[in-house]
Amino acid sequence: MVEHPVLRQAQLQISCLGPRPHPSPLQRSAEEATSSGGFVPDTMRVLYEPRYCVGEEINPLAFERAGARREIYFDPSQTQAAVVTCGGLCPGINNVIRSLVLELRHNYGVRSVLGIRYGYRGLTPQSGHPPRPLTVQDVESIHHQGGTILGSSRGAQKTEVIVDFLTQQKIDILFCVGGDGTQCGAHVIAEEVARRQLPIAIVGIPKTIDNDIKFCFRTFGFYSAIAEAEQVIDCAHVEAKGVENGIGLVKLMGREAGFIAAGATMASGEANFTLIPEVPLELHGPRGFLRALERRLEARDHAVVVVAEGVGQELLGQASARHDASGNRRLGDIGPFLKEHIESHFETQNKRVSVKYFDPSYHIRSVPANAADSLLCERLARHAVHAAMAGKTDLLIGLWHNHLIHVPLATSTGEKKRLSPTSNLWTSVLALTGQAKWFG
Amino acid sequence: MVEHPVLRQAQLQISCLGPRPHPSPLQRSAEEATSSGGFVPDTMRVLYEPRYCVGEEINPLAFERAGARREIYFDPSQTQAAVVTCGGLCPGINNVIRSLVLELRHNYGVRSVLGIRYGYRGLTPQSGHPPRPLTVQDVESIHHQGGTILGSSRGAQKTEVIVDFLTQQKIDILFCVGGDGTQCGAHVIAEEVARRQLPIAIVGIPKTIDNDIKFCFRTFGFYSAIAEAEQVIDCAHVEAKGVENGIGLVKLMGREAGFIAAGATMASGEANFTLIPEVPLELHGPRGFLRALERRLEARDHAVVVVAEGVGQELLGQASARHDASGNRRLGDIGPFLKEHIESHFETQNKRVSVKYFDPSYHIRSVPANAADSLLCERLARHAVHAAMAGKTDLLIGLWHNHLIHVPLATSTGEKKRLSPTSNLWTSVLALTGQAKWFG
Amino acid sequence: MVEHPVLRQAQLQISCLGPRPHPSPLQRSAEEATSSGGFVPDTMRVLYEPRYCVGEEINPLAFERAGARREIYFDPSQTQAAVVTCGGLCPGINNVIRSLVLELRHNYGVRSVLGIRYGYRGLTPQSGHPPRPLTVQDVESIHHQGGTILGSSRGAQKTEVIVDFLTQQKIDILFCVGGDGTQCGAHVIAEEVARRQLPIAIVGIPKTIDNDIKFCFRTFGFYSAIAEAEQVIDCAHVEAKGVENGIGLVKLMGREAGFIAAGATMASGEANFTLIPEVPLELHGPRGFLRALERRLEARDHAVVVVAEGVGQELLGQASARHDASGNRRLGDIGPFLKEHIESHFETQNKRVSVKYFDPSYHIRSVPANAADSLLCERLARHAVHAAMAGKTDLLIGLWHNHLIHVPLATSTGEKKRLSPTSNLWTSVLALTGQAKWFG
Amino acid sequence: MVEHPVLRQAQLQISCLGPRPHPSPLQRSAEEATSSGGFVPDTMRVLYEPRYCVGEEINPLAFERAGARREIYFDPSQTQAAVVTCGGLCPGINNVIRSLVLELRHNYGVRSVLGIRYGYRGLTPQSGHPPRPLTVQDVESIHHQGGTILGSSRGAQKTEVIVDFLTQQKIDILFCVGGDGTQCGAHVIAEEVARRQLPIAIVGIPKTIDNDIKFCFRTFGFYSAIAEAEQVIDCAHVEAKGVENGIGLVKLMGREAGFIAAGATMASGEANFTLIPEVPLELHGPRGFLRALERRLEARDHAVVVVAEGVGQELLGQASARHDASGNRRLGDIGPFLKEHIESHFETQNKRVSVKYFDPSYHIRSVPANAADSLLCERLARHAVHAAMAGKTDLLIGLWHNHLIHVPLATSTGEKKRLSPTSNLWTSVLALTGQAKWFG
Repeated sequence: MVEHPVLRQAQLQISCLGPRPHPSPLQRSAEEATSSGGFVPDTMRVLYEPRYCVGEEINPLAFERAGARREIYFDPSQTQAAVVTCGGLCPGINNVIRSLVLELRHNYGVRSVLGIRYGYRGLTPQSGHPPRPLTVQDVESIHHQGGTILGSSRGAQKTEVIVDFLTQQKIDILFCVGGDGTQCGAHVIAEEVARRQLPIAIVGIPKTIDNDIKFCFRTFGFYSAIAEAEQVIDCAHVEAKGVENGIGLVKLMGREAGFIAAGATMASGEANFTLIPEVPLELHGPRGFLRALERRLEARDHAVVVVAEGVGQELLGQASARHDASGNRRLGDIGPFLKEHIESHFETQNKRVSVKYFDPSYHIRSVPANAADSLLCERLARHAVHAAMAGKTDLLIGLWHNHLIHVPLATSTGEKKRLSPTSNLWTSVLALTGQAKWFG
Repeated sequence: MVEHPVLRQAQLQISCLGPRPHPSPLQRSAEEATSSGGFVPDTMRVLYEPRYCVGEEINPLAFERAGARREIYFDPSQTQAAVVTCGGLCPGINNVIRSLVLELRHNYGVRSVLGIRYGYRGLTPQSGHPPRPLTVQDVESIHHQGGTILGSSRGAQKTEVIVDFLTQQKIDILFCVGGDGTQCGAHVIAEEVARRQLPIAIVGIPKTIDNDIKFCFRTFGFYSAIAEAEQVIDCAHVEAKGVENGIGLVKLMGREAGFIAAGATMASGEANFTLIPEVPLELHGPRGFLRALERRLEARDHAVVVVAEGVGQELLGQASARHDASGNRRLGDIGPFLKEHIESHFETQNKRVSVKYFDPSYHIRSVPANAADSLLCERLARHAVHAAMAGKTDLLIGLWHNHLIHVPLATSTGEKKRLSPTSNLWTSVLALTGQAKWFG
Repeated sequence: MVEHPVLRQAQLQISCLGPRPHPSPLQRSAEEATSSGGFVPDTMRVLYEPRYCVGEEINPLAFERAGARREIYFDPSQTQAAVVTCGGLCPGINNVIRSLVLELRHNYGVRSVLGIRYGYRGLTPQSGHPPRPLTVQDVESIHHQGGTILGSSRGAQKTEVIVDFLTQQKIDILFCVGGDGTQCGAHVIAEEVARRQLPIAIVGIPKTIDNDIKFCFRTFGFYSAIAEAEQVIDCAHVEAKGVENGIGLVKLMGREAGFIAAGATMASGEANFTLIPEVPLELHGPRGFLRALERRLEARDHAVVVVAEGVGQELLGQASARHDASGNRRLGDIGPFLKEHIESHFETQNKRVSVKYFDPSYHIRSVPANAADSLLCERLARHAVHAAMAGKTDLLIGLWHNHLIHVPLATSTGEKKRLSPTSNLWTSVLALTGQAKWFG
Repeated sequence: MVEHPVLRQAQLQISCLGPRPHPSPLQRSAEEATSSGGFVPDTMRVLYEPRYCVGEEINPLAFERAGARREIYFDPSQTQAAVVTCGGLCPGINNVIRSLVLELRHNYGVRSVLGIRYGYRGLTPQSGHPPRPLTVQDVESIHHQGGTILGSSRGAQKTEVIVDFLTQQKIDILFCVGGDGTQCGAHVIAEEVARRQLPIAIVGIPKTIDNDIKFCFRTFGFYSAIAEAEQVIDCAHVEAKGVENGIGLVKLMGREAGFIAAGATMASGEANFTLIPEVPLELHGPRGFLRALERRLEARDHAVVVVAEGVGQELLGQASARHDASGNRRLGDIGPFLKEHIESHFETQNKRVSVKYFDPSYHIRSVPANAADSLLCERLARHAVHAAMAGKTDLLIGLWHNHLIHVPLATSTGEKKRLSPTSNLWTSVLALTGQAKWFG
């Protein structure tokens, strides 16, 4: 049996506010284990690991399956929900807001939905931006817009102040759309709510363009982001081929995980080198990147390089140490760093190269969601509503083997998903770019 | 334990041409069960059903996992592969061709890859179109083009003639890209190859824009198709709102399965009625579709209707019986049929409506693959190469819970996947369109 | 001197409601003939024909130049304007509405702008849809949407009723966005207004996706339409090449003028035959289209045919005469007619061809305006406001040699612009498609 | 009569290699002044200024009209042409190459067309990249790709070496696709050719994404560029609205002319400040930009700023003088300069703002041409062929009031077109952004 190194079944236990006295207003078929469109029993699970080797045992570690419950905790006619969006933009936030409102109002018939302005700051009295009621009409066409109609912000607020605010505003359910930091914040709020024994459900919807949230196979916005990134790589390819010894250098998002760089590389098929934070970068020396780039140019006259923003922080650390005194502000920016080192490397060799540098980050994250992401947003949001109406709390909605699951916030947060260099995805990137052969 | 109604483990057994004497030329890490990027042992499985209910047993029914094998059957330097593309167009065919060629040539180093022209017809001597060698340069930028650079055709050819042709042309591996009919054909070829005891591997890559191949969670081209379809639905919405009592009517692909209609509905968020073949259509009467449409128009002044092409064949049968004598050629075309019935329904009520009809089918299937599909094509093609080089045959590459799997052709073909009306997807469509409430 | 066959200078004289007592609130530089951004004097003209041959006289026939006037007729603080949109959809209508509102409110400071619902019908009391006030906030982001937020309708209403309505609603300025029929209607309204000596300005903004309005070099929406049409032609090309003897047949808009067919052909570069209403179509016979198509297929194995909807009405007349008794409803639809004749032509020759038919009309006209059209809408709308505020009436804003002009409605309407077969555009289409050589 | 300040008719005289003994192989209608699709007589002119004021004389200053000539200089069967592409990328270069080849080969039937590699450098023997013959097949689908299939370079080469090379390679016609520098180079080559009395035609096709070539109303690629830039501005708008006091700052191309910034502003409709090189930028002080931005934020909470790259060079000069010692490498880059000054301005006021900076330049210039630009490329390229085949030389093809014209290289080059602050375009930008009101 393949055991998970750390995860234990107890850590996947979902909290609930209490018994569920109300029948669901949804029209669904009877509960059955294999019919996901019907009501889902609380006992249904999704295996952590559906793979096994013949002769071994199957590991029963499993998540609680998300879905509509036959009985619910909240009386819809008395319930007020609220949505808050935090952190950086990501394609699909407005889709999530829209689907939350539509499911809550149209299908469950809750009394009211509030939109919290500008992130967690909007959950404090001093923000200057009171919550804004969200009607069906308000959200009807927002899914065609990028960004968030509610506004966002970064950073935490005092937990006590937020919970006071929830109580004063009579908010029964809070949906927190955001990344790892946001979900940590949601967990702390849920703990304070529990301490005060308040009947408030806190449900997280993971949002991270980097696709680095644990137990989410794919986060919304990821496909939209790599579709945009693919276009930029294609442009870099055009530029690289437009001159002798042209080098197109594209920096993509990914502070700690190379998923966007890898995904966009796969989608584009035009990158010759893809550099990710999970694989250490050696710049100089006979097996270093610069020498590899040199070999590629000798063979093919042009090259496209994709680099995730989190690459080579150890190299940049040295650089910044060297330059700090002279006021260098580019500390930590691998893009210009790499451009400079490429240029100076070939200068010392009297080889004329032309580096075209692309940094499309804000462009990528502010586009509307594409079709694949729209679908995912729809599913995530509606399942978040199901969880909340059932009184489940302190959880986020994950995606596991195409099934939506409940993951306790305490288990999901605090550590990010990373791209394993032994994964299928990374092997595919290597196969596609063929970059290994230039490293000599 | 949830048992599958028909499927038995024996049916998932994969055929192999023989022992594998050659070490794989791929550079991979050691075999381990959880590292998909390394070599995958033949004993690795992917569970058919990763869901279970607490207290029940987990069903061990499972597929063989796809992936690179440490030892392979074919000696690359002696091997010639061929690719044939059959049936209707679908976004991503050229991506598959490209990735097959790149993996075969760059990574395995096979001697030659042939492109078969115009489907199975090109595997016969009388086609007039001999196979065309495919170099890396030939395929380098084809993934940005829709369609298939090889051409396609429908219909079967004599199996004996094809196997003779394979032998004469010294083709060791045949990749068959196509839908259910194509894979049935591939299976028959594989059987004849086995009967003659020839060392030829036949590997299917499922292609169907309708997403209706069994054991493929999602087929390539599907996301691209619904992205295009989404735009058409959005246009229908614009048209519907542009006049009083405007009705935008969109016919989408889906002869037997409503996946595209459902997916595009979810992506667009603008459809008010979605009609699929799996749900019988009642046109007239107090709970019929026309009366429901009437209620919607009374409430909201406009409506968007999405209909899959396979809807209402029973109604069309009657219609055609009635009209045949007068030379009606539109037999079986639900789009114009529905348009006419909507118009005459409101005419009898003296209500002026304006129906705008959209039939975008060829447009949708001939676009290039989008990023999400490009990724899938990449994975499918490279895993098909791994299977073939390992001497596995008479199988197709499926997608199950995000893992690529081997499915025997005999098990996968002959019956199509359909959208279950109790599935999560269909429940979501109903939640989104809210169509149930108009049916009274 | 090249004289215009019919047009006389007197016909280009613009009507005005009276003297202009108010200084313009716009901040502009002093009037000078060559500075178009400043105030434009009423005496400025734009030549009808800027071409001449050396030794000949230059024809002084000229239009009044549009632009902001230093003195205006209406007192902005007392003025209420209204916008009505009529006829079929066209990319850019919302841009025009937006720019009208922004210019009227922000720059001139008029009291109020009304949006008329559903075309001229909304200018009658019995429409059931009263005018809707348009604030800056209402229109802020509508330019990203296709269609018209006001709704549209076809057909005229009683002139007296409309003028009564204008008076009752205290509308001082009416902007009529529409095609030839709409502008004819606007002219009749203006005449009735003049008969009653009312101080109401009627200003037309030409809208026709067919680009067939006289004295408008290019109407808004045209570039957006051909951009969409180009994509459809490209899809037809992909389909045509995807099978042996594939024929992609694309029907495009253009009842009387082939501008869209010609423009999309030029943009796409993939059409092999382009058929327009201005060039008679001979179907059969040794120099007919079917024989030409045959020659093309023999030479190149596939063909792309673009046909404007107005082509071959004389042929369809015969067809409909033949088929009327049997209830043929496709009278006048050249697309299916051509598809059928192509298929039966090759059937009689035992040549297997595959015709893929594309009819994208509603799709093309309901997309948002692209950048080139957005610019044009901006200019048209703001110049329409300048004209109206100056008290000019019974005119439309034309585009001539890149200058915006005033054209009397009586002169512009009643006859449509057509694509001359001796024009540069048509010659270019012939050069690009090379279609002449197949006609034998 | 409005006289042009400098231009005299003599400066618009076109050079010709000699008498034209060959009848054109083109099938065209008879010459007539008003039929542009027929053969165009050498005496046809297009007026420099089609505007005049009533009572004034019309200025007869005029350009020679481009178009096919009835008699031509070169014998097509003996003629070899060549194409060179220079300078930065621009959408549409491949369209121009394609149309040149198609017109030369298909319609005129010239013997051979050569593609020169990597700009003027490819016209020297030491480039290492000999000319590449261009067949119809080579160029068939290149118009869907951005960039240039020939490659480009910057900088001049020795004129004598180039003319020697032309002679050795037996090149009769050279098409030079490029901006002002390229056309200056073409003129020098033409002069040397004339000095040697060689029968070689040099014809320029203007290419500049900045739209700053004189006597070209619009250069190809401009509409494609502003369409891309529009999307970036829209993203900046989304980002700006996504946070409290968000500022989206977009740097666009335009070293000396603000056409792209102005055009994209008009297309997008979302910019609140547009800064161009032609209008001096005052940063500080009560009427400076920073104070204006402050007022805007106070009123509306967010702002979008578009800045052309050539803005504020005088400010940057000071900055660089100040910072040079500390190794500041960003000399001349207005984008980061502005970002920094905005941030420090609000820091001193203790107002938290969030500036999101977008620098999309390479992305914008490497996309394929859109439909509007494709049309223009088609026309430019084919008219360039007409001019060259007629033996006309030392000219470029301009666009004037929608007519294509011949402009002597000596007259067109050496000075760039700029956006006049009193022009209609700039006035429209001011009307749209409303930026003036914040400057106090």
